[in-house]
Amino acid sequence: MMNTPLTIPPMLERAERYFPAKQVVSRTQEKTHRLTYKEIGKRTRALASVLVELGLKRGERVGTVAWNHHRHLEAYFAAPGIGAVLHMINMRLSPDHLVYVINHAEDRILLIDEDLLPLIEAVQDQLTTVHTFILLSDKEQLPKSTLAPLYSYESLLEKGNSAFPFLDDIDENEPAAMCYTSATTGKPKGVLYSHRGITLHSLVQGMVDTTAISERDVCMPVVPMFHVNAWGLPFSATFYGATQVLPGPQFTPQLLAELIEQEKVTFTGGVPTIWLGLLQVIKKGNYDLSSLRGVVCGGSAAPKSMIEAFEKELNIPFFHAYGMTETSPIVSFSSLKSHQLSWAEEDRYNVRAKQGMAVPLIEIKGVNENGEIAWDGNEMGELLIRGPWIADQYHEDERSKEAFRNGWLHTGDVVTIDEEGSIKIVDRTKDLIKSGGEWISSVDLENAIMGHKAVLEAAVVAVPHEKWQERPVACVVLKEGEQATKEDINAYLATQFSKWWLPDDVIFMEQLPRTSVGKFLKRALRDQVVKAT
Amino acid sequence: MMNTPLTIPPMLERAERYFPAKQVVSRTQEKTHRLTYKEIGKRTRALASVLVELGLKRGERVGTVAWNHHRHLEAYFAAPGIGAVLHMINMRLSPDHLVYVINHAEDRILLIDEDLLPLIEAVQDQLTTVHTFILLSDKEQLPKSTLAPLYSYESLLEKGNSAFPFLDDIDENEPAAMCYTSATTGKPKGVLYSHRGITLHSLVQGMVDTTAISERDVCMPVVPMFHVNAWGLPFSATFYGATQVLPGPQFTPQLLAELIEQEKVTFTGGVPTIWLGLLQVIKKGNYDLSSLRGVVCGGSAAPKSMIEAFEKELNIPFFHAYGMTETSPIVSFSSLKSHQLSWAEEDRYNVRAKQGMAVPLIEIKGVNENGEIAWDGNEMGELLIRGPWIADQYHEDERSKEAFRNGWLHTGDVVTIDEEGSIKIVDRTKDLIKSGGEWISSVDLENAIMGHKAVLEAAVVAVPHEKWQERPVACVVLKEGEQATKEDINAYLATQFSKWWLPDDVIFMEQLPRTSVGKFLKRALRDQVVKAT
Repeated sequence: MMNTPLTIPPMLERAERYFPAKQVVSRTQEKTHRLTYKEIGKRTRALASVLVELGLKRGERVGTVAWNHHRHLEAYFAAPGIGAVLHMINMRLSPDHLVYVINHAEDRILLIDEDLLPLIEAVQDQLTTVHTFILLSDKEQLPKSTLAPLYSYESLLEKGNSAFPFLDDIDENEPAAMCYTSATTGKPKGVLYSHRGITLHSLVQGMVDTTAISERDVCMPVVPMFHVNAWGLPFSATFYGATQVLPGPQFTPQLLAELIEQEKVTFTGGVPTIWLGLLQVIKKGNYDLSSLRGVVCGGSAAPKSMIEAFEKELNIPFFHAYGMTETSPIVSFSSLKSHQLSWAEEDRYNVRAKQGMAVPLIEIKGVNENGEIAWDGNEMGELLIRGPWIADQYHEDERSKEAFRNGWLHTGDVVTIDEEGSIKIVDRTKDLIKSGGEWISSVDLENAIMGHKAVLEAAVVAVPHEKWQERPVACVVLKEGEQATKEDINAYLATQFSKWWLPDDVIFMEQLPRTSVGKFLKRALRDQVVKAT
Repeated sequence: MMNTPLTIPPMLERAERYFPAKQVVSRTQEKTHRLTYKEIGKRTRALASVLVELGLKRGERVGTVAWNHHRHLEAYFAAPGIGAVLHMINMRLSPDHLVYVINHAEDRILLIDEDLLPLIEAVQDQLTTVHTFILLSDKEQLPKSTLAPLYSYESLLEKGNSAFPFLDDIDENEPAAMCYTSATTGKPKGVLYSHRGITLHSLVQGMVDTTAISERDVCMPVVPMFHVNAWGLPFSATFYGATQVLPGPQFTPQLLAELIEQEKVTFTGGVPTIWLGLLQVIKKGNYDLSSLRGVVCGGSAAPKSMIEAFEKELNIPFFHAYGMTETSPIVSFSSLKSHQLSWAEEDRYNVRAKQGMAVPLIEIKGVNENGEIAWDGNEMGELLIRGPWIADQYHEDERSKEAFRNGWLHTGDVVTIDEEGSIKIVDRTKDLIKSGGEWISSVDLENAIMGHKAVLEAAVVAVPHEKWQERPVACVVLKEGEQATKEDINAYLATQFSKWWLPDDVIFMEQLPRTSVGKFLKRALRDQVVKAT
């Protein structure tokens, strides 16, 4: 067979050739842009020529500090197209960590949204490798800034070569993109994505049995484009010529509902907290969301009650997926096998509430102190993963040794795997509650609590206990206008769990602390609770 | 990223792990077998252990002379699983060519269906590399045969190791399978398929925008398993856990209709002549074929009238695909883009009657004496193809130089490519009719003739002409009980073509000569017609 490499340029070239009139709908601070793939192709090529002109070399990194919009999408293809690496920077990191990731990645050029300029200006003196700044803005006039040299993206593109050819000698194992993942302790850890990994990941996203992205989709990634390549959706949507909706700087539930209705979005993906918010807005508002064929939820486990709310009340198919920054990210996808279609409703939702089977090309196993766990839905162990879009190391980082051992990624997630091969995330290794020598799953408890009609959000953390070593405490945010007591919550839980699993305390809060990508910040919460008790 | 190779063993392992209870329904000479993937897995591993035991070495070839059934499927995975190469032998080759391909491939072991035993016995003295014969049969008793040593497949499997591990150090570029394609002149030419090529081809077959094979399918390949890996369907159906129906030694239209009804087949693929036959039977019989979500047609162009008959009269979605032995085979797949869905019916069928867009990872272009052809649907040129499942040579064959040049496969097919990127096969380079310096497409004419209500099949060939160099002559088979004259046919064609395109003669025949895979044998027909005129 021909040794045609699996690289990123042909993905955009496919959109240019076969789907030139399909659109990318992009919201920026100023307005909504509608660009065709033909235009996106020309602009991406112009950007590629500009990056070369500005001295960016093959293998070097170009960083983006940007929301979800068309210019970010252009950078997704321009950097890999010249053999450079796109470093998508999480601008919600602390200033210290922001400086660390930019210097550690050795970014040469930074592409920055106008409203995020102050973040970089505040740390510019500490940046050791960046030689050029480019402002992503609709405005013709550059704002006053201490960054230098600072260019206008649009002015540069006007001078660029819109027919610039992408490299045709890229090795499929060369890096194309890069993200940092925050660590429990210490500095963020960098993951390099190869052309091969991204291409294979995109192929699997086009498959019927996974996310099923196709030309007929209108795809709106609600996960930030600085977070694991927005789950790879911008790559696969472009590859297959799907219409894309990039919702810009804010993901307010109301905006999302409006975009879904106006643009007839068929497919979207994001973390549970996004969908919790959307659910509230949908129930209040009068939106037509009938175009949606699928909502994918990942990042952390979605409560079964949320899946049921989407499917039963709103008639919107809702799918669980599992992955992480180290895995590009799709590892598993939960849908019903043909023989499960006729199961009782309760059983079907129990399947759907798990994280699902590993997708093709990905291998998984669970491991605990006794060795490999049985696929019986009971035995718990740490999830290990391998496959062609799974990282084999952190970029120049000593901590690689802990996570990557014997050819497997050790995820730090505790799972069960059932007879059907479906993964269920029981907890993070570090969040598991060890009570009297037994394990209590914080995830199971919080998902159950979120099934209570008065509860908006819940997180369960371990607090130290003299006798039992650790005990669970629940932190709960109630829905507007709803009321519930500790006794209500525990009575509700008592119907589903053994008595010793019930939280020792239920603390009602206004809001839960979140990570920069919208997950509950369990560590901060635990500190807060421990301090208060 | 991890350098996990793309190899075939994980495809079967996926079926064993995730879909152990799904079935392979297999018809042999004697009966219908129903085996689960768990059983297929054990039997395949046992076969792999037996092949090793019999001395088969890594890289060596094992040949199959077999119809579409579960034992052939087991060989599809057992040989690659031990690093050997499965050579699927076209038993319809002439005895000379049969000997040639077995010796040229250096087959060591042959797996032979009982009814095909005489074919091999007849040439056994000329086989120079085969050391072992295995009989594929349900019977416990071996029949009398001159082949030696001859073993019973089932007896060997009983002694085999059903937990035998597949190799885990296969390089993805190692060959896994092999088919020979018949040449216009001379010996058949061998094509080696790599693990990587087959894996990537399978991924694309699972995509929404192509054949969309999924776990929920009941997949029946009607293309022979000795022909281009049965279009790769046994690989992808196994990979995704689809139910498979393997229809055994005969593909009579009535049997196919019965199998579709009984097994609720959702997806099937084969050459146009198969579907022409099925259409006749369906119209007469009273079959429930409502389970079918798709029929894929390839091998040669299907007349638009056939596509319309399937879709309008039978409500069965019918898809054109294009490929060849050298291309694994899927190159292009014809379906409507979203903006075409609202086109007028006639325009939609005109799109559907073409061979469609190249699938992801495949690149195409058309080339004639003036260079690369425009994508305007008019200019004709030879189709060139490249991609990771396209052969880069014929196995140890001088003729590689003609077909593989500058990194592209030169197909010998003349095409137009339209603005949407859809390929239309106009003719084989060698079948094009050159009349008065202009080109006439034999394929366009015969597809139009097959739209006439009295016509069952038609083929158009060039006959030499003193003045015009070549002129078209049509060979026509009428439907049972129907009548038509040369004048009727030409009057019908005159509504669609310029006068100079109309055949000089229309010859009515009882049947048309066919190749071993069911395509019209244009060369034999041309000789026959030239001799008669």
